[in-house]
Amino acid sequence: MVLLYKEFFTALLMTRSALITRYLAVRNRTLEIVDPLLDEDLCVQSMPETSPVKWHLGHVTWFYENFILRHYERSYAPFHEVFGKMFSSYNTFGQPTPDSNRGLFTRPSMKVTWKYWRVIDQRIKKVLNSSKDDEMLDMLVVLGLQHEQQHQELILTDVKHLFSQNPLNPCYKPFNLIPSEKTLPVEWRRFAGGVVEIGFHGPGFSYDNESPRHKVYLPKYELASRLVNNGEYLEFMKADGYKDPSLWFTEGWDWLKANKRRSPFYWRESSKGWEEFTLGGVMPLDLDLPLVHISLYEADAFARWSGARLPTEAEWENAASRQDVHGSFAENNRFHPCSAKKSISVDEQDELLQIYGDTWEWTQSSYSPYAGYNPAKPNPKEPMSLVWDEAVGEYNSRSMVNQYVLRGGSCVTPVTHIRASFRNFLPAKTCWQFSGIRLARDVKSNA
Amino acid sequence: MVLLYKEFFTALLMTRSALITRYLAVRNRTLEIVDPLLDEDLCVQSMPETSPVKWHLGHVTWFYENFILRHYERSYAPFHEVFGKMFSSYNTFGQPTPDSNRGLFTRPSMKVTWKYWRVIDQRIKKVLNSSKDDEMLDMLVVLGLQHEQQHQELILTDVKHLFSQNPLNPCYKPFNLIPSEKTLPVEWRRFAGGVVEIGFHGPGFSYDNESPRHKVYLPKYELASRLVNNGEYLEFMKADGYKDPSLWFTEGWDWLKANKRRSPFYWRESSKGWEEFTLGGVMPLDLDLPLVHISLYEADAFARWSGARLPTEAEWENAASRQDVHGSFAENNRFHPCSAKKSISVDEQDELLQIYGDTWEWTQSSYSPYAGYNPAKPNPKEPMSLVWDEAVGEYNSRSMVNQYVLRGGSCVTPVTHIRASFRNFLPAKTCWQFSGIRLARDVKSNA
Amino acid sequence: MVLLYKEFFTALLMTRSALITRYLAVRNRTLEIVDPLLDEDLCVQSMPETSPVKWHLGHVTWFYENFILRHYERSYAPFHEVFGKMFSSYNTFGQPTPDSNRGLFTRPSMKVTWKYWRVIDQRIKKVLNSSKDDEMLDMLVVLGLQHEQQHQELILTDVKHLFSQNPLNPCYKPFNLIPSEKTLPVEWRRFAGGVVEIGFHGPGFSYDNESPRHKVYLPKYELASRLVNNGEYLEFMKADGYKDPSLWFTEGWDWLKANKRRSPFYWRESSKGWEEFTLGGVMPLDLDLPLVHISLYEADAFARWSGARLPTEAEWENAASRQDVHGSFAENNRFHPCSAKKSISVDEQDELLQIYGDTWEWTQSSYSPYAGYNPAKPNPKEPMSLVWDEAVGEYNSRSMVNQYVLRGGSCVTPVTHIRASFRNFLPAKTCWQFSGIRLARDVKSNA
Amino acid sequence: MVLLYKEFFTALLMTRSALITRYLAVRNRTLEIVDPLLDEDLCVQSMPETSPVKWHLGHVTWFYENFILRHYERSYAPFHEVFGKMFSSYNTFGQPTPDSNRGLFTRPSMKVTWKYWRVIDQRIKKVLNSSKDDEMLDMLVVLGLQHEQQHQELILTDVKHLFSQNPLNPCYKPFNLIPSEKTLPVEWRRFAGGVVEIGFHGPGFSYDNESPRHKVYLPKYELASRLVNNGEYLEFMKADGYKDPSLWFTEGWDWLKANKRRSPFYWRESSKGWEEFTLGGVMPLDLDLPLVHISLYEADAFARWSGARLPTEAEWENAASRQDVHGSFAENNRFHPCSAKKSISVDEQDELLQIYGDTWEWTQSSYSPYAGYNPAKPNPKEPMSLVWDEAVGEYNSRSMVNQYVLRGGSCVTPVTHIRASFRNFLPAKTCWQFSGIRLARDVKSNA
Repeated sequence: MVLLYKEFFTALLMTRSALITRYLAVRNRTLEIVDPLLDEDLCVQSMPETSPVKWHLGHVTWFYENFILRHYERSYAPFHEVFGKMFSSYNTFGQPTPDSNRGLFTRPSMKVTWKYWRVIDQRIKKVLNSSKDDEMLDMLVVLGLQHEQQHQELILTDVKHLFSQNPLNPCYKPFNLIPSEKTLPVEWRRFAGGVVEIGFHGPGFSYDNESPRHKVYLPKYELASRLVNNGEYLEFMKADGYKDPSLWFTEGWDWLKANKRRSPFYWRESSKGWEEFTLGGVMPLDLDLPLVHISLYEADAFARWSGARLPTEAEWENAASRQDVHGSFAENNRFHPCSAKKSISVDEQDELLQIYGDTWEWTQSSYSPYAGYNPAKPNPKEPMSLVWDEAVGEYNSRSMVNQYVLRGGSCVTPVTHIRASFRNFLPAKTCWQFSGIRLARDVKSNA
Repeated sequence: MVLLYKEFFTALLMTRSALITRYLAVRNRTLEIVDPLLDEDLCVQSMPETSPVKWHLGHVTWFYENFILRHYERSYAPFHEVFGKMFSSYNTFGQPTPDSNRGLFTRPSMKVTWKYWRVIDQRIKKVLNSSKDDEMLDMLVVLGLQHEQQHQELILTDVKHLFSQNPLNPCYKPFNLIPSEKTLPVEWRRFAGGVVEIGFHGPGFSYDNESPRHKVYLPKYELASRLVNNGEYLEFMKADGYKDPSLWFTEGWDWLKANKRRSPFYWRESSKGWEEFTLGGVMPLDLDLPLVHISLYEADAFARWSGARLPTEAEWENAASRQDVHGSFAENNRFHPCSAKKSISVDEQDELLQIYGDTWEWTQSSYSPYAGYNPAKPNPKEPMSLVWDEAVGEYNSRSMVNQYVLRGGSCVTPVTHIRASFRNFLPAKTCWQFSGIRLARDVKSNA
Repeated sequence: MVLLYKEFFTALLMTRSALITRYLAVRNRTLEIVDPLLDEDLCVQSMPETSPVKWHLGHVTWFYENFILRHYERSYAPFHEVFGKMFSSYNTFGQPTPDSNRGLFTRPSMKVTWKYWRVIDQRIKKVLNSSKDDEMLDMLVVLGLQHEQQHQELILTDVKHLFSQNPLNPCYKPFNLIPSEKTLPVEWRRFAGGVVEIGFHGPGFSYDNESPRHKVYLPKYELASRLVNNGEYLEFMKADGYKDPSLWFTEGWDWLKANKRRSPFYWRESSKGWEEFTLGGVMPLDLDLPLVHISLYEADAFARWSGARLPTEAEWENAASRQDVHGSFAENNRFHPCSAKKSISVDEQDELLQIYGDTWEWTQSSYSPYAGYNPAKPNPKEPMSLVWDEAVGEYNSRSMVNQYVLRGGSCVTPVTHIRASFRNFLPAKTCWQFSGIRLARDVKSNA
Repeated sequence: MVLLYKEFFTALLMTRSALITRYLAVRNRTLEIVDPLLDEDLCVQSMPETSPVKWHLGHVTWFYENFILRHYERSYAPFHEVFGKMFSSYNTFGQPTPDSNRGLFTRPSMKVTWKYWRVIDQRIKKVLNSSKDDEMLDMLVVLGLQHEQQHQELILTDVKHLFSQNPLNPCYKPFNLIPSEKTLPVEWRRFAGGVVEIGFHGPGFSYDNESPRHKVYLPKYELASRLVNNGEYLEFMKADGYKDPSLWFTEGWDWLKANKRRSPFYWRESSKGWEEFTLGGVMPLDLDLPLVHISLYEADAFARWSGARLPTEAEWENAASRQDVHGSFAENNRFHPCSAKKSISVDEQDELLQIYGDTWEWTQSSYSPYAGYNPAKPNPKEPMSLVWDEAVGEYNSRSMVNQYVLRGGSCVTPVTHIRASFRNFLPAKTCWQFSGIRLARDVKSNA
């Protein structure tokens, strides 16, 4: 999920000094996120799908080194010859070691990794401060910062998984234990549909998978006014939702049996009742908080049991694009979703609570290219367009099979990373990301 | 893929005597298809995804017994108590043995299985001849026949796979070796798009996944005038198409490496050059014949390499619904696709050759419910609607994740089984079905 | 397990006419064993470790064709070029298809396979009748017959496994349901030990793994007077033998949990209590019959629980070689072990009941070469010694790792196939062979 | 491999003050071994068969806490309630987490783990200094020290594996690069055999699997005067040893193909020729150094190719017990085997070079109980015998299936841990331990 949509790119460009300010802010934020962790925590990979934090740190550093310094420093030399191989995720740059081996790299030590970080940081700042206006340089820095923000989110999800495997139940960062507010009742917001447009329209940054903006036809539909909460999901469980194959995709039922699932991934039953593992440690399950960390299989089964369904991504975007991006994001440093409370900032009639932040929302839409999508090709006459292509080329549309779209960002997503058109995508079985449910339903044509 | 769309159902009903004629024809066709096979051929299961032909025969028989005789015979008794368990594919009827064990059932012998077939056949005919007008009975018989036609196709695909594993290269049925006609060159047929309707509109039979008919918005697009042929795919292979990861979905690339694929599933390289295993035995590869038996991964990689893409199912249906259903189907008893030849039956301008028959055509659309789709619920006040629900209930929409839609039928599909709205669906890795490629491409908005 | 021990071989040679008589008897016995089976039963492979009966039939035929006719027919031509590939188990003859694919060969049909059998049979008889005295020819025929006897046993074990997977519980051959005699109580037979000799000493046929006869030192020991019976094993189960990890090898405990074992392989619990699947169908569990079809893991756990242990193969042979070979073998056509009854043919003092026949007896000895074992090498000056080596060479000692020795033959072994020195060997997890337990124990040195 | 053989135990007891001296030495040695490692190196587990160093450190500490302090401190309280679960390898103490998850425990931090180490260490010393004569206490301390020595060896093997997975090729501790002395030629030492005794005979410490001392009969045999070296193994490789299935166990051949092996585990081919990964980093392959890190499969194939065989463990012990324990052990801090050089300390006639130290020597003997072996049972009347049993009980003989015996210790074994009767055991596929080859051969009876 990487290619920038060039058409609107120029519009996002800030002054160089504004860019430098932003650069400093993003890089500093990564340091804040890593701060509560020990060197041991940074080194370990808890499953093949996750990466060690040290790798994330090395990788975002390598990104700046490889795509910027390599081209903008006059007498560029790599910090370490092997780091490209160890910290790259690109098949085209060296032959990277298998992703699942990243946790075996106890060396470089954190001491050396931080040195790598600091040295490259200094060199990037020097380039930014000394080079003249250069649109491509600015674009590459913006890309690097977006890339780093993605990894900020991944660091949090990966640490959560790692800590969840530890019998000591480590706490990444305590959060307020005050009982959440009583969730507001669900209301159904109706949308008229018809021919609407979805996809990014600038100005600002976006990935290529959000383009082109294009027309789709939507029938009339309704979305729930808030996310599904833990209490509602517990009702599903008590009604034997995990035992009735007719509620599940056949593939989901096989997954459930093979993995012996009977509750969401981070829920645990103890003598004290249901608890939830969070980045703040193990908490009693708060029924008013949004359900989070479920697979698409579970989301679909719950929706089916509720007599509703999951929204399509077009339905979601058509609704969400009417609201500003605000909500419970990583910036509030809670790293756990909040209960739905009445907003006063928008007209109550079509208010969609929690539409941004809190949890990613599964859609029923498989991840596929938009009508008219055309991965940008480098222009051989412009050498830096080749660099750009290198930086973004590997990711293009190679994930566009057997993955499903999620929308809206979560409580571990930086707020500046999200917009109505942003498309996240995951395999249906994924539940270690902060994923939740917003229900949708059809409107009878005469309604 | 089973629920009938009730709304249009009444329109399809024929007279009882027409129905009996059709019943006799379909059942007789199954016997014709099985005729060239030995008892040993009927018993074996070549992989978990396929079933032994004997199981197919027992299963279609059980379908009539369980959903019709059980309700329409006054003093119904099952032919054999254990057969329900052995020949059912329904979780709700007995606890069926795992699908992958079907090939272990050397008993009942074929002698007993044929007796089962004949006895149930006699009893069904008796019910049909003696019972009065009964719409539900007729509907159930039609459903049984559609079901049997699906299994006719599966018998042929499963036998092809079985024979392909045998060093003796058995021949199911020889076909004409005369070199195929030179394929016509590809032309691009343009479609205006806009808001169009897709989905079944009667009269006649359809499955519930084809409904409701609904609006979609399509941008202007083009479809290739014919299927991709072997020669074109061989060019892709010669251009190292199987060696360039940038052409493949990441998941497809992993599949290719894990399975050591370097050509389509039934292609074989010998000292004499490329050959193709067919139901007529091993043949020299005919470059003018349509490419068949490829996965979605291969279809997408080829399209990418060609600078084109796969069509969406809406694009396909919008185009195909303009043409009558005719082409190379199972009825011509060749069981292998034919080369594209100029048709004289339709206006040449928008002719889509091979749009029906020859090979199923992969689309880029994941298999998901249509907007407004609503699985019919039984009406507790009408007992036979419960039977209907039993007969079709298990399949509803439980496959609607991680599968992709194919359209148009193939050379092993009965022609009476296909229509423009028919949706077949398979996992992306499948290549033992008769699947091929029709290319699509965007039209620049100013074109 | 194949090389003949040449030193003693000449002693076994019979007259040519006696050899022909034996040839006819063995080959006819195979036909008797196959007689109750349908063509479907003959074709299917129920798991990778077993083979279809058709393959066994083709393989023993191919053995005669390849190792005798190929060398003794003046104008030899293979019956079918591909059969060598399909029916060989030798890496050195063609590149055989994977063992686990044998069940996919629905062709050749049984009709053709029987033709193969008859034609080769005729040609072998012609060679035997027309050729002059030829020690190597006679040796190869004897080898072929021993080989065929091994496959006679395997046909019965493989059919038992196949039928056990069928919900219809097919019966291969009914046997007497009269309750077995009450088992005699266990008595302990004491053996003095010291330096004893084990290994084959002629005259007669033996495999090379039984040689050379060599000295071993045995401490004083005791063997149980009979096999463990079902009733005793049921006590072990009731005492939570399958739930106490301290009774099991760590590897056995992992096996048990991975395979969810809680009883012997062919035992089944029904509303009527424990039953046992046999070649005579499903029978109520007879507590007085010998326990059969258990893994080494189970045998060892039971022995440990009993305060005893399994014998070593040297202890077994030292004891068994004092008794003649008689007991419950395949020839009595029961194909299920019998209860231990007092023998009157030997002196009661050291009588070991069931030491031959009934069930193979697990030993604690891993399968390894005897001291001084030396696989015979062909003599390049004697061309037929190369043939001999081909016929037996592949098997030599390549199985001598991670397998355990079983002794004494079973109720599906031909009695003429067994002697005190015969070594069978299987992986510890095997339970589809007719394997059981005889307990052993140490004798305190002052006893 | 744990139970002490009590009979000889009293003989080993030293004075309390000698015991304290030994305690200090062993514990200090562990610190020396860990000293070159970073906190990150201590935390990671490179494969399920290995453990993180931190776990080894916590585990040996827990052993003292659980088996000594728990019983000898008046007001014992565990250091941390969860540590028993995390650092135990005993099923009977808590329900330990799966071995393969040990690398996920980034907490406790090393800081806390070292605190655990120091606190328990202080408390043990206090118990030792303050308690009166107590044979059981002394026995438990000796057992704890033997246990710690085993883990000292494992720390080195596990770190070697971990570092080998790192593209930076970390060096644990550099060692002398001076070319090794030219290996002495192999000579064959002859042993007369007959009835000999093997097994531990005191005084001193031994594990229960070395007892009882018992008689075995050995035919005359010969052992090679030194270990196989890299140069000899390279000859085997050049002679296509990895390509000829007739040299390999069938199981070994499957292993080789499945793992794509074509050389020993730590050998690497580069543009500069063959190299070897060592604890001193990557070195050019020294042909005169002993071959190390091979599986039993490779050892057997090499021996077969050489026209020799592997020794039995009885042959090995009968020969080795004539020599004192001296050689290249962990104490010389090289952690890599040395070339064979003429010894002057023993009579040259029957000198077996490298019989102790350098590399563990594979035998062809499967790991099984000695004749008369009888796991000691606790005496319910002596409470501390129950503790003893707890400490050693889980391991008894539960590994005695499908493992093979290795003898003699290696360059990472503490010299005080080894004796002629010491039995190490590993699965045949293991090659990450320091395992090598000494050849054996038969002597013709008339020789």
